[in-house]
Amino acid sequence: MRVLAVDPGLTRCGVGVVDGVPGRKLSLVEVGVIRTPSGDPTPKRLVAVEDEMRQWFARHRPEAVAIERVFADTNVSTVMGTAQVTGIVMIIAERLGLPVTLHTPTEVKAAVSGNGRADKAQVTTMVTRLLGLETPPKPADAADALALAICHVWRGGTQSRLEEARLEVLARTGSRGSGIPRRVPPGAAPPVQRLRAATTQPARTRPGTDRPQQPHPGAQPR
Amino acid sequence: MRVLAVDPGLTRCGVGVVDGVPGRKLSLVEVGVIRTPSGDPTPKRLVAVEDEMRQWFARHRPEAVAIERVFADTNVSTVMGTAQVTGIVMIIAERLGLPVTLHTPTEVKAAVSGNGRADKAQVTTMVTRLLGLETPPKPADAADALALAICHVWRGGTQSRLEEARLEVLARTGSRGSGIPRRVPPGAAPPVQRLRAATTQPARTRPGTDRPQQPHPGAQPR
Repeated sequence: MRVLAVDPGLTRCGVGVVDGVPGRKLSLVEVGVIRTPSGDPTPKRLVAVEDEMRQWFARHRPEAVAIERVFADTNVSTVMGTAQVTGIVMIIAERLGLPVTLHTPTEVKAAVSGNGRADKAQVTTMVTRLLGLETPPKPADAADALALAICHVWRGGTQSRLEEARLEVLARTGSRGSGIPRRVPPGAAPPVQRLRAATTQPARTRPGTDRPQQPHPGAQPR
Repeated sequence: MRVLAVDPGLTRCGVGVVDGVPGRKLSLVEVGVIRTPSGDPTPKRLVAVEDEMRQWFARHRPEAVAIERVFADTNVSTVMGTAQVTGIVMIIAERLGLPVTLHTPTEVKAAVSGNGRADKAQVTTMVTRLLGLETPPKPADAADALALAICHVWRGGTQSRLEEARLEVLARTGSRGSGIPRRVPPGAAPPVQRLRAATTQPARTRPGTDRPQQPHPGAQPR
């Protein structure tokens, strides 16, 4: 699955494209930052972001889009720009028929580091390792977009696959239960359980941590 | 001057188109509300708003665009949608080379009623009178967009004309003063002063009020 992830902003907008499936090695496709001069009128800046964003979509043809979910507890004018860039990305994705998922910063940090309150340095370190890079991704402020892409490969992918599997089970058994056991012992599990085991693998096998997998504090189903 | 004015929102977005110049009678071209179902995913709703908004622009070919300026002190999710619709309108206008001006609700109310704290009923009454309508405009919640358009004809037009005049004076005299007197006695005034007098006329001659023109409490230069 190729994910295009956006850390939205009008002055700096991080964009990261990652290839990966849950349980396999992830690979970096491209990372960058779209910038617009804060002195320019907003309409001009929005058009510039839209033009450049369309080029990202055309260049990489992603299969899914992830956007960082923003809250209005920060600076008012910043939130406006962030919301507008989020809208631009949503419209491009929708017109291409691509699914859009929002993830909160806490979800992203929890997904890549196991800690929803990880700091920027920790997130960058994990992103560097998870993508098998020799040096931290540049520009530095684009690491968040890559973390978001990784989060989406694991969480977003996991969730939609689980949902598919759940519907498959429902269709087969006619049951209305959750259909998917919470914990699966390794071994000869049925397809749905193997899927669950596979999708949790990245968190277990990721380098640089020997903690067992823990529930993500900020991870709530959307 | 034909103004397309937008009271932005994702669930209901008021759109009003008005023809007019400062000091002359205003006329209603079209008023309406773009609605999207709140149950739909945001990307789908944004695309629907963009599509319909583009039709408004194509149908009426406005010369200027006014958008109500929103603040983030209201509901968070509402502000996001409002900001996103504002962004959509800005991008359409910018791509058409049209000037975009934001006016605050206080500026709009002050412009049409002389009172920045006028209630909805007062604004609707004034809009109905100013546009020479026999009945209040429908749908009712689109009256705000018309008030905004009227405000823009008077304020926006005034401001840009005054700015042009100011630059003209500067170019002619080389002075760096404001160039424009605050109050102009009626009579044989030079062009800049006649312009000022003309642009304040609507507030003096509008029907339904016998108050002398007052400074607008919420009216600040942008």
